[in-house]
This record gives sequence, C-alpha cells and structure tokens, in this order.
Amino acid sequence: MRQLATLALLPLILAAAPPKKMTPTDAVNAAPASAWRTIPAEDLLVMTLDGGGRVVIQLAPGFAPVHVANIRKFANANYWQGAAVYRVQDNYVAQWGINEAKRALSAGAVAKPPAEYTRPARGLAVTPLGSPDPYARNVGFANGWPVALYKDGSASLTHCYGTVGVGRDMHPDTGTGGELYAAIGHGPRQLDRNIAIVGRVISGIENLSALPRGSETMGFYKEGSVAKAINGIALASTMPAAERSSFQYLDTASPAFARYLAIRKNRDDDFYRVAAGGADLCNVPVPVRPTPVSQ
Amino acid sequence: MRQLATLALLPLILAAAPPKKMTPTDAVNAAPASAWRTIPAEDLLVMTLDGGGRVVIQLAPGFAPVHVANIRKFANANYWQGAAVYRVQDNYVAQWGINEAKRALSAGAVAKPPAEYTRPARGLAVTPLGSPDPYARNVGFANGWPVALYKDGSASLTHCYGTVGVGRDMHPDTGTGGELYAAIGHGPRQLDRNIAIVGRVISGIENLSALPRGSETMGFYKEGSVAKAINGIALASTMPAAERSSFQYLDTASPAFARYLAIRKNRDDDFYRVAAGGADLCNVPVPVRPTPVSQ
Repeated sequence: MRQLATLALLPLILAAAPPKKMTPTDAVNAAPASAWRTIPAEDLLVMTLDGGGRVVIQLAPGFAPVHVANIRKFANANYWQGAAVYRVQDNYVAQWGINEAKRALSAGAVAKPPAEYTRPARGLAVTPLGSPDPYARNVGFANGWPVALYKDGSASLTHCYGTVGVGRDMHPDTGTGGELYAAIGHGPRQLDRNIAIVGRVISGIENLSALPRGSETMGFYKEGSVAKAINGIALASTMPAAERSSFQYLDTASPAFARYLAIRKNRDDDFYRVAAGGADLCNVPVPVRPTPVSQ
Repeated sequence: MRQLATLALLPLILAAAPPKKMTPTDAVNAAPASAWRTIPAEDLLVMTLDGGGRVVIQLAPGFAPVHVANIRKFANANYWQGAAVYRVQDNYVAQWGINEAKRALSAGAVAKPPAEYTRPARGLAVTPLGSPDPYARNVGFANGWPVALYKDGSASLTHCYGTVGVGRDMHPDTGTGGELYAAIGHGPRQLDRNIAIVGRVISGIENLSALPRGSETMGFYKEGSVAKAINGIALASTMPAAERSSFQYLDTASPAFARYLAIRKNRDDDFYRVAAGGADLCNVPVPVRPTPVSQ
C-alpha cells in the first residue's frame, strides 16, 4: 500500500546513501533523559471508559487553579459516579461529566469559580514558536504547554487537538469543572480566552475521537442515550501503584525541544519536497511519553 | 447538561432584550439563493462504505486536473472493486483505495501524473482571509476553495479538516489517485505543496473520522484486516437520479461569504466574552449545503 508521509520501504542503497534527515520523531527519540520532565501524579486525571478504554489528562493548575482544585476534589469524592460522554460533535469536541444542576457539589469545591480564561503573562518563560499566529500577538511554549500572549499582558492556554476545557453556561457562569470537553478536530482557537482550559489529553484521545458522533444539535446524544458510560475518574496520585500511569513531557525550554520545533517547521526528510518554513502552534504538539521503567 | 458554545436555553427576556448577534450559522442561513453555487455532478465522488455510510467528495479539477481525470476514470471503470479504508491514524488521516501495485491501471488513466502540488496563482480571484498564516505569504478563498499563495507566484489548496489528497511513494512518484486520504485531525498544513490535493469531503466525513484507529505504525490496519470495506465509488453524474447527491457551496466572492468570514473572525454572540480578531484559514470552512429541493 502507498504510505503517506512515511520513511519506510525505501530501497536500501548501500553505497551512496546520504545521511538520513531527521523527522520530528527522530528528534524526540534523540532527546536526552535530562530533557524530560515527569508530570506530578496529582496532575494526572485518569478516566476509564466502559469497555476499558483509558483517557489520561494532564491538568494545568498554573492556568486554572480553582477549576483544577475542583476537579481534584470531584475525582476524590467520586462526584462523577454515573457520568458519561454525552456529546460528540465532529471536528469539534467530545464532552463528558455529570449534569451539574442535578448533583450536589463535593465538600470544599467552589460553586462559582472565577473566569480563569487568562492569566498574567508575567512569570511565564516562553519559548516562542517563531511563526505568525492569527489569534494572538505571540505564541509559544511555557512549562510544556502551548500558550498565547496578548496585547493586554495576559496569556492563555490554547485550544489545540486534545485540549481539555470546562463546559459552561452563559456569562457569568464559568462551569465548575463537573462537565469537561476535549477538542477532537481542528483546534477551535476562537474559544481561547472565552473558557477555562484545565489540561490536555496526553494518552488515549482516540477513545474519545473515534466515538460515534451524536445525532442531535451540536453532537449531543438523544436524551437517555450516551456515547460511552464512564466507569471511573481518578487522580493517578490516589491509584494503586500497579494501576498508576506516569508520563513525561519534553522540556519546552530544552535544546532538544528547539531541535524538534525547527524540524516541525522545516520538514526536509525524504518524503518532503518543500519545507514549510513555519508551523501552526497546534501542529507542534509537545512530545509526551510514558515514563521509562528504569526511572 | 451544560452546553458549550450554544445560544440555546437563554431565559426569554421580553422587555429589554438587545438584538441577537449573528453566529456563523446565522450568517450562512441568511445568505440569499443567488450566493450559492451548485457543484457539477461530475465533480462529486460518492463513496459508499460497508454498512451504508456515505462519503461525498468534491473534486478539484482546477488544481489537480490529471489526478482528477484519473479518479473519474477509476470510478467509471470500477477500478476500486474490493477497495477498503486500510489506514486510520488519529489526528492525521483516514486512507483508502486499492493497492496500486496490484491492480492494472484503467484504460486512459495516466500512470505517472505530474506533481500537481501547486498551480500558478495567476487566474485565481482570491478573497483574502485577512489574518496572518504560518505556511504561506497569503491565504484566502478562490472558487469556494481555501488556497495559499506563495512568494514564487504559485498557489495551492491547503490541508484542512476533510481535505482529500493522493497517497504517494517517494519522489518522483506522485500517486495515481488510486489511493486517497482525508485529513481527520488538525489540518496538517506541512503537507501543502508536497502532495496532490484533489478535493475535500463535503458530506459524511464522520464515516471516516469516527472509524477505529489502526493498531500498526502510522495507523495502518494489520495485514488482512481493514477499518471498513468500500462497497462502491461512483461519480454523481453516473448515478441514477434518485440516488444522486447534489450540493452547493457559498460563493467565496459573495457579500454573504464576507459576512460569514467577518463573524468567524469576531465571534461576539452571547457565548463569547472576547472576539479573536482573526481566524486560522482552516477554522473558516467554506459553507456547503444540499441543493434545496426547489432548485
């Protein structure tokens, strides 16, 4: 079968083969152990779907601390008992949780969190993307996250594939975090600064993105049916060691990330004829890997 | 359930309600009949999947005429007998067709088409997007298609959600059109100018995007298994009238499209707190609708 964008199946030419040019994957694989940062277990939310599919979300307490604190409380208080994925809209979002109007808030959770849609840019060490962006004055990466910087001195996380945000009603509601969504199509960046982003899916996004789309307006499922029941949502920090997930992200301030970024912007391996000379922020996903067993 | 980005369920305030602000959907619905262009039936490729799901692709003969001519010949000669969707890679592509190495070319088809990756920009009347782009000097819309314009005077179609391209091997191979893919994640714009784009999915993309992901490298299915068998691929122009699909796109040079574009760049309906002031090309999908029965 023809392989789109692959390096495989090239005839092996023993004599005159030039040095193979790096792909983004090569650059990630070449990163030294020192360039990887282990994600704290209390920042990992593990959702188990009916049938066993697992979705792992890295939380972003540096951007939406009150919503993230709520989410941790919900996970620990079994708030999501009976929750489900109830909306799957093609090229937009998969959404899940429990109807906030019908479930008593967990002890200590905040009923009306502030609008954590932006935070001050000050305090963020940003590695710039180096390509223009239609939505912000500047974009780049800070502490492993894609970020946008605005003229007013604020910063936000950005809606890329896998980004997790908080479903909400109309202003001034900001959502409690009891209903969440993940972006499963082209990054809906118009939502940046309009909704609380609380994290991103770092493993198992296909367990959401390949779900059947809902038949009702905006991809909602018919009343009484759901895309998928959720068997449990827990923080990795509270799980038995044997079931716990551990992941690392590539330090976005490291030389290894700089090399990866340069290659993403200028694909010049054998499949490519023209290097783009730039990249969209959402086409430079921050590399994540399971923590190697030796560490 | 909380509704992300919805206008519904607002309490009806009889006295002081300000005029409702337009959503992109409102703008499309307000477009006059004169702003819609019917797609010629010979430009519609209708793929029927096992189980009945239908995927309709609008072909782009203005950008890849030789590949599109091949595709029409393949459809008419039943070249794709036994074809299948054999690759589904999350956040990238679904790919289908027949192994070109194992199937005799249809009569009149071109075995080695030219590299129809770009065309001259001259001759294209482009409505500019009006936002910066990381991949091209300028981007916009021409004859209903998203296009990119480059410094060297060339133009290309762009890889957005639903874009259909031609699977190929390494240079100088360009693929015959016998193996095709559709983008099912964040638009992989780095492929622009590196591969022949032959069209876009205008209906039924969810029949590809919600397929289970392949377990092998790059989302390929295991040898001997496929994501989905394909029951038939035909041009609408050759189908019985009763089974034929007809679609229209919104003229991208029309005032109605200009209004839609302005709203896409500045969402200010009730859900939004901050209008972006710009948009990514792939976040402005050209509106398409079934041709109204009255026309």
